[in-house]
Order: sequence, then C-alpha cells, then structure tokens
Amino acid sequence: MRILVLGGDGYLGWPTALHLSRRGHDVGVVDNFVRRQYDFEMGVDSLVPITQLQHRVRRWEEVSGLSIDTFVGDLTDPEFVDRLFERFEPDAIVHFAEQRSAPYSMIDRQHAVYTQVNNVVGTMNLLYAIAERNPAIHLVKLGTMGEYGTPNIDIEEGFIEITHKGRTDVMPYPKQPGSFYHLSKVHDSHNIQFACRIWGLRATDLNQGIVYGHETDETTMHPDLATRFDYDGVFGTVLNRFCVQAVVEHPLSVYGKGGQTRGMLDIRDTLACVELALLNPAGEGEFRVFNQFTESFSVQQMAEMVAAAYPDTVKIDHVDDPRVEKEEHYYRAAHTKLLDLGLVPHLLETSTIRSLLAVVDRYRHRIDMEAISPTVKWRSTASALRTTAGLTAG
Amino acid sequence: MRILVLGGDGYLGWPTALHLSRRGHDVGVVDNFVRRQYDFEMGVDSLVPITQLQHRVRRWEEVSGLSIDTFVGDLTDPEFVDRLFERFEPDAIVHFAEQRSAPYSMIDRQHAVYTQVNNVVGTMNLLYAIAERNPAIHLVKLGTMGEYGTPNIDIEEGFIEITHKGRTDVMPYPKQPGSFYHLSKVHDSHNIQFACRIWGLRATDLNQGIVYGHETDETTMHPDLATRFDYDGVFGTVLNRFCVQAVVEHPLSVYGKGGQTRGMLDIRDTLACVELALLNPAGEGEFRVFNQFTESFSVQQMAEMVAAAYPDTVKIDHVDDPRVEKEEHYYRAAHTKLLDLGLVPHLLETSTIRSLLAVVDRYRHRIDMEAISPTVKWRSTASALRTTAGLTAG
Repeated sequence: MRILVLGGDGYLGWPTALHLSRRGHDVGVVDNFVRRQYDFEMGVDSLVPITQLQHRVRRWEEVSGLSIDTFVGDLTDPEFVDRLFERFEPDAIVHFAEQRSAPYSMIDRQHAVYTQVNNVVGTMNLLYAIAERNPAIHLVKLGTMGEYGTPNIDIEEGFIEITHKGRTDVMPYPKQPGSFYHLSKVHDSHNIQFACRIWGLRATDLNQGIVYGHETDETTMHPDLATRFDYDGVFGTVLNRFCVQAVVEHPLSVYGKGGQTRGMLDIRDTLACVELALLNPAGEGEFRVFNQFTESFSVQQMAEMVAAAYPDTVKIDHVDDPRVEKEEHYYRAAHTKLLDLGLVPHLLETSTIRSLLAVVDRYRHRIDMEAISPTVKWRSTASALRTTAGLTAG
Repeated sequence: MRILVLGGDGYLGWPTALHLSRRGHDVGVVDNFVRRQYDFEMGVDSLVPITQLQHRVRRWEEVSGLSIDTFVGDLTDPEFVDRLFERFEPDAIVHFAEQRSAPYSMIDRQHAVYTQVNNVVGTMNLLYAIAERNPAIHLVKLGTMGEYGTPNIDIEEGFIEITHKGRTDVMPYPKQPGSFYHLSKVHDSHNIQFACRIWGLRATDLNQGIVYGHETDETTMHPDLATRFDYDGVFGTVLNRFCVQAVVEHPLSVYGKGGQTRGMLDIRDTLACVELALLNPAGEGEFRVFNQFTESFSVQQMAEMVAAAYPDTVKIDHVDDPRVEKEEHYYRAAHTKLLDLGLVPHLLETSTIRSLLAVVDRYRHRIDMEAISPTVKWRSTASALRTTAGLTAG
C-alpha cells in the first residue's frame, strides 16, 4: 500500500512511518517541522535527543534497506497538498499533522486561533484533495478521546442510538471537548463526516487516548531513529511527566483531586491500531470512529503506579488544576472495534513504567525542571510562557 | 442597553439595528461590507435597491431623531475587535457577522475554507474580547436550525436528555449539518459553549430557521432604509425565489421531491426574537440555545402556497436537487423557549406572501433571471459561478 504519514516527524508519526515501512508499505512522510518550532518558542526540548528528518530517513535506509520519501510543506497550503498528491499518489493517508497540545491551544487568543485554523484548514485541504484526485483514498485521521469530554453516561464509538419521544435514531455521539485544541478535533470530525456523506470518501477517525511510552521495535534499531519524548508542561503528557519527576525525586504533581480518568495506550498499540485501520479500510462514503485506547486510569492511579514502580520513595503532591475539568466523574468508554480487528494490547504494567523510567534515567542530565510546571491556565485568556532559560537538574 | 449589532449592514442586521434603536437602545453597527463584495463577485444584486450604510444611518437620524454609531472593520482582525470594544463598551452583542450562505460555502475549496475561517475566527476573537474586557456582556449569536440536520427523532432546543445503559445525562443535541457553512455554525456553537464554561460568559445561540419577508416597521419609514432582498441561486432563500419566479411567470423550481422540511419565520419575528433574548439575558456561564422559527413547511408546500397566493397561474417544476440532503424525512423541532418569553409569531399567510409578491412586482424590472438557477452543486468540489452578465427580464 502507498501510505502518506502526515506529521511524520512527530512523536507518533515517525514511529508509525517506520512501522509501516518495515511492514512492506511504500511510505511517504510529510511534515512542516512546526512541532520543532514550538520547542524553540517555548525554550524546551525533547528529553531524548532526536535527529533531523532527512538524517532519520537516511539512517533507516542503512539499517533496514527500506526507503521513505519525504515531503516538506504545510497542509494549510493547498498548492503544496496538490503537488503532494500528484507526486506520491497515496492509497491511504495517516493524518497526525495537527497541533496536538491542549495547553498550547489555551495559551492565548493567538494560539487558540492558530490551533483551530491550522488543524481545520489542513484537514479541509486534504478532504478536497482526496475528493478531487481519488475518492478511494482511505483517510485515517487522528482524533482524541478528549472530544467526548466526561459525560455521565457510557461513551460509545462515535455514534449512539437514541430513543426519544417514541422514536429511535443513530446519531453522532454528542461532544463536550475541554480545550480549543480538543474543539479543533471535534470540528474536524464534523467536517470529515460531511465530506464522506457528500463525496463518498472513506474515513476512519481514531479517537485516541493518551499515549505513553517511547520505544518501538523500529525506533530501537538505532539511536538516530529515536522519537521525541516530551515532558514539559505544554506538550508533555501525564505519565511521561510523572516518570521525569520520579527520576529527579520531585513530588509527582497531580492536578486537583486526581480523579480525572482518561483512556490510555502504549505507543506500540498506536502503531498496531493505525495498521489495523489501514488493513481494514472504511467503505465508500463511510465515516467510522474507533476509540483507540486500551485501559482507563485516573491521574491519581497513574501517580500511584509510577510511585510504586520507582525503586526509591516518591511523594505525590496535589497542585491546583490549571484546567477547567471535572476532578471526579463517571467514566466508561467503549473500545471494542479495534480489539475486534485483532488488536492485542500492551497493558500498563510495572515493567512498562520501569522501561520508561530507564529511558528517563538515561537522559536525566537533559531534564529541565523549570519546563515541567503548568504555566497555561484555562481560566486565564493569556498565560505567560516561560521565556527565560530554566535551570537544569540532574 | 448599549448593543453592538455585528453584520449590521446585512439583510437582518440592518433591520435589527433599526428596531433596537427605536426601542431606545444605544446601537452600534459593525460591518466590513463583505456581503456587498459577494454581490460583485457573483455579478448579482439585491432586488430592492439599498443605500450605503453611512447614508442609511444619516437617513435614520433624520427620520427618527436617533443616532446609530458605525464601525467599519473585520472581526477576524483582533486589533479591530479590541478597538471596537474600547470605544463602544457594549452591554450586549448581536452577532450576525458571518458568511451565511450554504451554496456560497460549497462553491469550491477556497470558499469553504474562507467560510469556516471567517466565521470561526471572528467568533473566537469576540469570545476572547468579551472574556478579557467584560465577561458580563451578553452574546446573542445567530446560529441556524440547519445545524441539526434532519434526524429521525424530535429536535430539541440545543440539548437533549439521553438515557443510555441505565444512566441519564443532558447532552448537547447531536449535530448533522448539511454544508460547510452549516458546519461553521456548529463549530461556533461548540466554541461558544466552551467559552461560557471556562470563562463564565453568557451566550444565547439563536438557531434560526429560514427567514422570509422584507419589510419591518422601521425599514418602511423611508425607501433609503430598505434592507436587501436576495433571490439569486447562492444567497436567495426559497420563498423569496418562488415569489420572484411567480412574478416573472417562470415555473417555481422545487429542488428534488420537495419533501425537504424546514423551520421558517417572518423577518419581523427575527427582530422580536433577538429583542426577547436581549431583554432576558443568559445567566453567568450559561450557554443556552433557542430554536428561532415559528412554523415548518416543506419546499413543496411553500411552492404551493406561493402558487395559490399569486393571482395568475403558476406552474411548479421539480429540478435536480443541487444539494445532498434527504428529500423526504421526519421533521419535528421544538421551539417553545421564545414563545415562553412572549413571542407572538407572524404566521405565513396568503397576505404575507401577497405583500412579498408586491415588493417583487415593484422591482420586477431589476430581476435577473440568470441569477436564479442553482449553479453550486454539493457533489462537485468546484462549481462555476455565473461570471458573465445575465439577461434581464421584466
């Protein structure tokens, strides 16, 4: 299969590209490197050093004998998208190429508008390009479990049967997203569903949980193939942050009560899920939604698991929640569709956390403690980013 | 009350501004005249001649003794929005300032992207300005009944109680919009609801039906105060188009089977509804939705009503539906909240249609028959606009 991986220089895009390449697909990676630009803006860096895309691709060819095409450009530029489709002629597209941080979208007006325009327009340009060039192309789009919010009923996979005043219909599951970033994904979902309806496109919306982990079968083949590891207060996700805090013997910072429960998955399962979606494409005109996570944990539970896995004593601190979210809530979300396609999950076990802690320990000299604290407050319309150089621990 | 009417040069914005001015409010009108630009782009014009905003406002002052402030600028420009709030200091905002044509948004990629960016970014800039300057400002936002689509269950006003697997929650009503324009309104609704939640803003989303009619108590006070009357295939709405076709003795063109049923309302009820929303503002942090229409009709019914009201014989033709929509469907939508606040509807009677026909007849020499046919096809990703001058009938 000829597969374009959009955002293929990123945390998940890069390992996905390698995985698909190794599985025998012709892979093209597309990126505009704006994710690297965010690091410059914030004065932070991936904990694990990463090489440039061109270097990564050359190293992959040396290690595996497989070549990956690279395309540098921006999906919000329709001429670039057009040239991209003309040159690569994909059978399928995996679309990671969006601003993916909730805190980044909540910094201020400019970042909120940037996030929504970047994500929504990039996806619209894709939809038009697919419809115009080849409606049979299967779009595998990364959404997020955060689109649903935390309703007081079970979350289903994209759609829900509603019986109301004696009549029944299957409707899109109501969305209650919690940031301008999550909202951008909801907007995307609506736009994609509409494009499938009017143009007969095929799309799979992967509503992904929070991903943890760093190493995959392919990225460990050479240090130059490593993917990013984010632990900063803006792009870092909770489990990664706890591991970093444990290693530097800083209390694990739980936001608020810690009852916030989220779907989670191992980075290796992301790759497996994307592949399963690609191998079992949506039908003509079908917009389908898979909830892509394997287990649910509360933030408090995650902190306790990291503390238990760490050999030394680690404290757990509760800090003010910078977000506006329910700190205790009902949470039960369906996630059977990918299991039905054959997903065999990697569950979050002590050994998983220990291997993550080992990665962190290896690069502990690169930890910037100043980068960890949450600087972006949901209730404020303008949060200051840390702009001065921080102290370095380790 | 100090009220800003955004899009106050448009079909509904202008009569709303006059109505609120006459009711004793301090009114400021904001517009960037892009609606007039669309006419130039398409080579069409309002059937009823309209004067420039500055001229309208001067005439209003002569006729009524009341002054209206004018602000010329674009809501997608945050600096303009900031200056606007600084100068006018509104208590409430009525937001009509969006690209509001479904066919216009479906012309091609560029128009789809323009519609979504223009509408979503303008509204986001407003939300930030309100949150930063005065969260007590009540935002009255024009949405559309088209956000809901045509589900097989009753449509409620913004929210629906769902019982699912033994648990119950009140959720946002699932949206199934039918164009990139309607999608932009859905995106807005989600963004506004979120802003109310995190910043405590007050917002009323008026999910308006299709408006018909032309004259209000204020616009009839002088010919220079007339509002626009659109009948072209892109901005004209169905009842207006049928009246124009009747007057020139052209068959009334029903799209497809004509079973498409929509909520409708008289232009005078739009004014009354907006005023009712303003006088009964949303609470702190409240995002509420009113379904703003008074009656539902199918397209076929509307054609038959116009044919019956017209003194001569009028034929009804069925043409291919340029849209992708259900041509026959269940439709029952709640619309009690505005009635509960005191709305006394003007129903669609023969006399209403006759007065509309009289307006059309007065300007029949300005009718451009070439402008009426639907040129924008939903199934196509690029429709040609009529770019040559059309013939003039009458």
